[in-house]
Amino acid sequence: MGGTMIIVFVGTAGSGKTSLTGAFGEYLEENYKVAYVNLDTGVKELPYKPDIDVREFVTVEEIMKEGYGPNGAIVESYDRLMNKFDYYLKEILELESKKDYVLIDTPGQMETFLFHEFGVKLMENLPYPLVVYLSDPEILRKPTDYCFVRFFALLIDLRLGATTVPALNKVDLLKEEQLEKHRKYFEDLDYLMGRLKFDPSMQGLMAYKMCSIMMEVLPPIRVLYLSAKTREGFEDLETLAYEHYCTCGDLT
Amino acid sequence: MGGTMIIVFVGTAGSGKTSLTGAFGEYLEENYKVAYVNLDTGVKELPYKPDIDVREFVTVEEIMKEGYGPNGAIVESYDRLMNKFDYYLKEILELESKKDYVLIDTPGQMETFLFHEFGVKLMENLPYPLVVYLSDPEILRKPTDYCFVRFFALLIDLRLGATTVPALNKVDLLKEEQLEKHRKYFEDLDYLMGRLKFDPSMQGLMAYKMCSIMMEVLPPIRVLYLSAKTREGFEDLETLAYEHYCTCGDLT
Repeated sequence: MGGTMIIVFVGTAGSGKTSLTGAFGEYLEENYKVAYVNLDTGVKELPYKPDIDVREFVTVEEIMKEGYGPNGAIVESYDRLMNKFDYYLKEILELESKKDYVLIDTPGQMETFLFHEFGVKLMENLPYPLVVYLSDPEILRKPTDYCFVRFFALLIDLRLGATTVPALNKVDLLKEEQLEKHRKYFEDLDYLMGRLKFDPSMQGLMAYKMCSIMMEVLPPIRVLYLSAKTREGFEDLETLAYEHYCTCGDLT
Repeated sequence: MGGTMIIVFVGTAGSGKTSLTGAFGEYLEENYKVAYVNLDTGVKELPYKPDIDVREFVTVEEIMKEGYGPNGAIVESYDRLMNKFDYYLKEILELESKKDYVLIDTPGQMETFLFHEFGVKLMENLPYPLVVYLSDPEILRKPTDYCFVRFFALLIDLRLGATTVPALNKVDLLKEEQLEKHRKYFEDLDYLMGRLKFDPSMQGLMAYKMCSIMMEVLPPIRVLYLSAKTREGFEDLETLAYEHYCTCGDLT
């Protein structure tokens, strides 16, 4: 393993993966050797200097010029990247042997990484990557949404075969009381369950059942609260990555 | 409700939503009045004639010409669509009052529909929509993947507040024995659990726990096996939509 920590930022388009990769890397560089990997074939500009950048091989915009629509071009770009899979894996593993941290910025559309062979196979071949699943606070409107985010993190873990920690990103945009509310829902399971009980819909009942039973079986992993702007939560993420590395992936 | 069934096709880019919307609509038109709604701002061509088409208002390619990258343009297109939310909701409800079926073809990138306010709010405002979650058989490689698909369907249900049925699409591309294998994993829970038991990874253990406990609490919904090419599974989908409508959304 060479003592290197691999951190992979995953999230929907607009959840702030790229900004966070840049800001967290800058923070780490104060004490460590950091490498950056960009796996997004559709990104226009990066706030960091990538050591590996898949856009050197293919971009979504190039493929669109061949006549593809945007959705087709995104999928096609990763189909083509599969031809270079061994090359990119080797390059990443080489960085891993030379740096303290390798930060991986994933495709703009989260589903490209979760559902395409490129993402799944890459994760299978990296040593103990830690996945940080970023959510925009905007998506948290109802009690069932907190349940959704927790379970989504479990599903990413299941799909990619890698420990996944849920993180609320862009917390600098939240008022103090909003952040407190989000923390309460994520960290006080009894509180969440109490709220879900008042939701008379089938989905409220389903969320109640899912949370009550699952949390018994699978102790919930911490939730991180991050900001690329204020560096909030960066120490927590650094600590968590270190613990993950020391325990070979078992954070529970 | 007016006796109209609203069926919403959801799935990742390339899972075959658009072809299936067209083919299933053609099948239904032999006996019913069918309306088509296209919510994909990025699609190039449709195999059906949409009654409502969001591309009349905005397209991803237009927005890219303003300087956005493909990922940013996709998100921006739905941000702009939010300004027309009331209009589109009203239009869809009007179709609902005139037709027997309303088929809704969702954004190319599934996450746009699941995470953007446009998709979530639309689903909250439609009467008893049935969501069909399409998976490409390509993503099913390991026993944990079957667990992933089942739970993903539950999460869509939770997020959109609508009954969601998982469907394996493009089954015409499978050999008979491949299809049998997929059916076995989806329908014989003991078999799946037995396989998961042999997976020594943390994810294997997690999938085992998730499946064993969850299936006790939430009886698994049927899985559909569909093909736009051969019409396989179309009768099953028609039956299921009818049952869903008659029971006001409770298929379990």
